[in-house]
Amino acid sequence: MHRTKVKVAEDALDANATIAQANRGDFDRADVTVVNLMSAPGAGKTTLLESVFGGEGLGDLRPGVLEGDVQGSMDADRLAALHVPVTQLNTDPGFGGECHLDANMVRSALPSLPLDEIDLLVIENVGNLVCPAEFRVGEDARAMICSVTEGEEKPVKYPLMFRTCELVLINKIDLLPHLDFDLEKLLYNLEAVHPGVEHTLVSARTGEGVDAFRDWLVRVGERARAPA
Amino acid sequence: MHRTKVKVAEDALDANATIAQANRGDFDRADVTVVNLMSAPGAGKTTLLESVFGGEGLGDLRPGVLEGDVQGSMDADRLAALHVPVTQLNTDPGFGGECHLDANMVRSALPSLPLDEIDLLVIENVGNLVCPAEFRVGEDARAMICSVTEGEEKPVKYPLMFRTCELVLINKIDLLPHLDFDLEKLLYNLEAVHPGVEHTLVSARTGEGVDAFRDWLVRVGERARAPA
Repeated sequence: MHRTKVKVAEDALDANATIAQANRGDFDRADVTVVNLMSAPGAGKTTLLESVFGGEGLGDLRPGVLEGDVQGSMDADRLAALHVPVTQLNTDPGFGGECHLDANMVRSALPSLPLDEIDLLVIENVGNLVCPAEFRVGEDARAMICSVTEGEEKPVKYPLMFRTCELVLINKIDLLPHLDFDLEKLLYNLEAVHPGVEHTLVSARTGEGVDAFRDWLVRVGERARAPA
Repeated sequence: MHRTKVKVAEDALDANATIAQANRGDFDRADVTVVNLMSAPGAGKTTLLESVFGGEGLGDLRPGVLEGDVQGSMDADRLAALHVPVTQLNTDPGFGGECHLDANMVRSALPSLPLDEIDLLVIENVGNLVCPAEFRVGEDARAMICSVTEGEEKPVKYPLMFRTCELVLINKIDLLPHLDFDLEKLLYNLEAVHPGVEHTLVSARTGEGVDAFRDWLVRVGERARAPA
């Protein structure tokens, strides 16, 4: 029984990898850099993207967003208000709501994405610290947001998510004075799970650290464009 | 392709329902009331249980906990320190970490649960607002925690979770003065998704509202014991 289950899972991940590769090819041909942005529900993905895309924006890089949600288009509406091209992908037709995006869902959205108007596509995944980390979707890089309100032990409890991201944004630091939260402990746990991973303290609310995230996105975009 | 997927999902949910029924029978024979406690990661499940089980506790009701986590036993260790029987269930052997508990996982833990020493079993599910809601595990009642740091729109974005619970605990209300959070808007969204659902404002940190959660647990225990 157990062995059968693992086998099915591996098949599903094999198929996902194949489709992710096809997505990657399409993004490359369109010269689009793709970032997969993940977090728990309510960690601040949309608010942080609003901060990054608002104001001076990303310089020459033209951003776009693929917005993954179980249901609704509230986040997409917020981002579209900033005149960023946004495509909504709802996961609720499958199994009472899929808890993550996979490569095939992203593939199904490709025809709706104006790839020729985008240099940097941010895929805002479904809010979840487990399954999104298991499915590559054709991205160049992965970033995650971890909110200080979630506690210090999250890297240890959800290690794959923290291990699989190149950038960890530690959000809502404006709340630190009001929390029993030990930032050193979080950083210690993060280092234990993903040694040396880049991390940035941010507050989408006050704007602190938003420039660092913006710089990282620009760097990822330039890296993807650099000759190998 | 899509049709096949839905079929597989329905089969999986059918099998789950059958096993949940078997769990229910075992809990009934042992005279144990079961509450399935769910939330997003870091919403405060363990801290709230610490508050409820500490101090005067639940009167005559002897509590126990089945602790679901992808990896590790940090939460179980915290609760065991309160001299509550705790059984750890890790989901990481399957598929890089299952994002929820299902009836079969709970069933596999039954032999490790000291059911004759427990009147009320709280199953602390994996932190996730999507899949845990889809799988009954043999519980009498479902409760969920929604933290005010997660934003007002969560009921609308994760409707199944909010619809499937009898009690919604709105946690971390001590942080309200420091957030741009509109409590009325959350309550409006909650009412839209699950009209009339019981809800309680709590702060696991200050202890506010913890008595109301304690009373609810006792009521669920008494209801399960009442002649039909």
